[in-house]
Parts: sequence; C-alpha cells; structure tokens
Amino acid sequence: MPAIAQDAATQRVLTLAWMNRAALERTVITGEVHYWSRSRAKLWHKGEQSGHVQRVREVRLDCDGDAILLIVEPQGGVACHTGRERCFYRRLDADEWRIADPVIEDPTAVYRHD
Amino acid sequence: MPAIAQDAATQRVLTLAWMNRAALERTVITGEVHYWSRSRAKLWHKGEQSGHVQRVREVRLDCDGDAILLIVEPQGGVACHTGRERCFYRRLDADEWRIADPVIEDPTAVYRHD
Repeated sequence: MPAIAQDAATQRVLTLAWMNRAALERTVITGEVHYWSRSRAKLWHKGEQSGHVQRVREVRLDCDGDAILLIVEPQGGVACHTGRERCFYRRLDADEWRIADPVIEDPTAVYRHD
Repeated sequence: MPAIAQDAATQRVLTLAWMNRAALERTVITGEVHYWSRSRAKLWHKGEQSGHVQRVREVRLDCDGDAILLIVEPQGGVACHTGRERCFYRRLDADEWRIADPVIEDPTAVYRHD
C-alpha cells in the first residue's frame, strides 16, 4: 500500500513510497523506515547506503486501511535520490511542471532508490 | 496515480486518494480537487455533496512523475467520510491501531466517498 513520509519538524511531505506487511514490521522493530521497492521486489531500508535514514516518530493508518502516513525525522536533509530535500520538487505553474526546489547534495552521491 | 491532500494551514496530511489525467485537469480548471474514484470508476468532485470541497493552492509532482501532492484549503474542517478532520486518524500504539482523532461531524451526514 502507498506510504507517505512527512517530516516531523518541517511538516513537509517528503516522499510517497510503498509498504507491505514485512516493511511495516521492520519499520516498527527498527524504528527506521523500510519500504517495499516495487521495481526491485525487495525490502528497502531507506538510507541504508546514503545514510539518509528516516527515524519513525509516528505511524498512522487511513480510514480504508489501505494507506500509511509516516511521521519521520529524516537524517541529512535529503529524502530524494535527485539530491533534494523531498521528492515533490516540481510545481504546476501555468500548465508546466517547474522545478521549485534546489539540489542540496550531489545526486551522484545519492544512490538510486535510496 | 496516488494523490496526497495536505492542509495548507495546518500542514496535516488529510487524505490519500487517486487521480488520473482527467481528474488533474478538472482540478486545475475549477480550482477544486477532483479525484478519480477507483471503486466507482468515475471522476469525483470532492465535497460536491457534503460541501467539504478542497480548494487547491498548489500542485506538486514527485521525482518519478507518479505521485501528486495537493496543497489545499479544506472547507468545513472535515476531509474524511467518517466525519473526522483527516483520514489518517488511527495511530500505531504498541502494535495496535488506536483511534487518535475525534469525530467532528455526524458521519451519517458525510456521504461515503465524499
């Protein structure tokens, strides 16, 4: 199911990724967010390689029981593999998607899907 | 694709719903959020019946181009069909999902899926 990561401090929505039961269990047990990578078909410990782990403060479930909200403390200030604070860095402006957020870290240093 | 509605004022994540191209177009043209109802297989003007429309302040797209973030001004203070402010009203607490948010409005007055 879709899982939304929201920064506990800034309240910004960082990422939408996916979780299954195993990912949720690992997240709760370790206190660090684990997603289910659909493209790689495996558990994905967010930040395992980049160091940009997301510590979990709160886990919420929606009314239909099919979406998760994670309130997190992101480490390193970068959640997106493009080297930006968050994945939602494009804003709709006069029918164009425009890049609205700066690159904070060299994206070649942030591994794809991490 | 999944679409996250976030309250522009409180910054709370209200709802995860779904959009297609037509829903996004109607949202931009009208300035009020339209989702794609997967269960009913039709466009769904949020709040059309309940009055709890969501005015759009900002639309963002994620890095993979497959998730939308809507910054909205929700009308009436209720986004969930259960009569709560937001759909993410259950919080994980010692391996149990506990209801953490109060009902604001009689849920029989808030139509299902609206």
